[in-house]
Amino acid sequence: MGGDFAPEKVVLGGVEAFNKFQNRLDVILVGKKGEIQSVLLKNQLSFPDDKIVNATEVIEMGEMPTDAIRNKPDSSIVIAARLVKEGKAQAFVSAGNTGAVAAASTLIMGRIEGVDRPTIGAILPSESGFCAIFDVGAFVDAKPQHLLSYALMAEIYVREILKVDNPSIGLLSVGEEKDKGNKLTKDAFDLISKSKLNFIGNVEGRDILKGTANIVICDGFIGNILLKFGESVPKYMKHLLTLYAKENLFKKIKIGLFKNTLKEALSPLDYQKYGGVPLLGVNGITIIGHGSSTSLAIENMILRAYEVYERKITERIKKTLAQISVKE
Amino acid sequence: MGGDFAPEKVVLGGVEAFNKFQNRLDVILVGKKGEIQSVLLKNQLSFPDDKIVNATEVIEMGEMPTDAIRNKPDSSIVIAARLVKEGKAQAFVSAGNTGAVAAASTLIMGRIEGVDRPTIGAILPSESGFCAIFDVGAFVDAKPQHLLSYALMAEIYVREILKVDNPSIGLLSVGEEKDKGNKLTKDAFDLISKSKLNFIGNVEGRDILKGTANIVICDGFIGNILLKFGESVPKYMKHLLTLYAKENLFKKIKIGLFKNTLKEALSPLDYQKYGGVPLLGVNGITIIGHGSSTSLAIENMILRAYEVYERKITERIKKTLAQISVKE
Repeated sequence: MGGDFAPEKVVLGGVEAFNKFQNRLDVILVGKKGEIQSVLLKNQLSFPDDKIVNATEVIEMGEMPTDAIRNKPDSSIVIAARLVKEGKAQAFVSAGNTGAVAAASTLIMGRIEGVDRPTIGAILPSESGFCAIFDVGAFVDAKPQHLLSYALMAEIYVREILKVDNPSIGLLSVGEEKDKGNKLTKDAFDLISKSKLNFIGNVEGRDILKGTANIVICDGFIGNILLKFGESVPKYMKHLLTLYAKENLFKKIKIGLFKNTLKEALSPLDYQKYGGVPLLGVNGITIIGHGSSTSLAIENMILRAYEVYERKITERIKKTLAQISVKE
Repeated sequence: MGGDFAPEKVVLGGVEAFNKFQNRLDVILVGKKGEIQSVLLKNQLSFPDDKIVNATEVIEMGEMPTDAIRNKPDSSIVIAARLVKEGKAQAFVSAGNTGAVAAASTLIMGRIEGVDRPTIGAILPSESGFCAIFDVGAFVDAKPQHLLSYALMAEIYVREILKVDNPSIGLLSVGEEKDKGNKLTKDAFDLISKSKLNFIGNVEGRDILKGTANIVICDGFIGNILLKFGESVPKYMKHLLTLYAKENLFKKIKIGLFKNTLKEALSPLDYQKYGGVPLLGVNGITIIGHGSSTSLAIENMILRAYEVYERKITERIKKTLAQISVKE
């Protein structure tokens, strides 16, 4: 029921994944059963009735996460998280209210031992392919040990899922030197330096799109602001091109002729449309999609959830954090 | 002597401003006299010899600001700041090491009473014209009262120099609601709310390019990271276009045909080339330019410094902060 195009695109993506990957995975649709059946009917799709779990309530995009979860126990987000908790599902995929999905996962599935705070990552495009930023989940006022645990969890995800051997990790700051930064980053620098991670030190704002590090670690406050700023860039560019086209007919024709080329060339900027991002540190698998997820994005998110299951990311995080706790 | 194209472009911009605006302002060139004279000679320009102040040392772009100022008392940055302190100049304009310019201005000219911390702003383009962000100066670990003083100083600058009546002020956070944010922004929210400023509450990362507020206030840590991220966007886009052009000859031709149109349409993204940004809160006028400042940018910075002088920005800041202190 979550996202700008729910339930239609979510149901279509779910059914497509069910049909395409049935030798590997199973799909359960959670939401208002009547609405789900309407979408199936309208699109002349068949889907097993016993794989639709009814949820009478819907958490809207603007609701306060913890309030919403408390007040709507029969919402699709709460029920889906419960299915994972009860072992009836192995993963939870949603394009709904990010905060509510994260809160429901954390409260219902529980945190992995040693994880004070789960983290949400974003996989941005970069000159070297991608740049994974943790945390972008708006978990604010992080402590140095939180940043270290983000780094440890992100390393496992990027290594196993994005297939980068020994991924490099940078700490987001205002200068490359060790003594540049705020209190949080200076303390975190020391802590991460002592780990076995491939820590390359501080990186700056310009290093994200450059792809200087495979993984960039930051407090969720700045991660969230950066992500939203980045997402607004294509819209601003469109605004500039529209302004330019309005100047005269000749310019309008030029923009018209080139629009599709530009869209194609700059398509990596629309990264959020193509898949979900992981919530790491909870006792289960949660993949969160952008509100504007298409059915293809939903399908990709389901496949991604399967990969996280198959590569045993949750177990690996448990093991790594247990080792760290023993050492301390 | 500062910036990627020094001394040539700096001297050319300075001489151009001197010739163009001599009914309004006077220009003093501070730097290695021999090198300055060589540039003048090479470009067949005349400039009064007594308006060249010799400085034997140069602070490089990568040097640590406070060390550099201490170790190079005869550098152009230190001498220029001293000229303002001694009343021999009314403003200091530089495209050199930003941290060193800010530190020299603060230490030599001194801070305005009531200003704990000076602030550097950036004027980004936006859908509503521009968005002024304070602080981007990498002054980290700000306290709520620092953010309030940034807002008070920025308001004066944007009103008097960028000519916006009663400019709107947003506080950069992770959600629009008052209770969204980290400890710093929540406390600053209360403080700014109590001021007479046109405070519109929290704004998010996406509101900067959208231009939701005329002024966006944030800690210098995040401001600096955002600014550097923003500056890297055009470079990343160029990378994407180059990749696209490499795919085949047809695509290469399309990109070749459209390159100039795109450059023209997206020119506002290259905002840093067009002028300097103010350091506010010091007892004098300092305008800091981007390292890649052209001679036109230097000329614009000198004109901007004149406007700051003419609109009595320093005096207005003194007056406003004195009133605030009395009230408390």
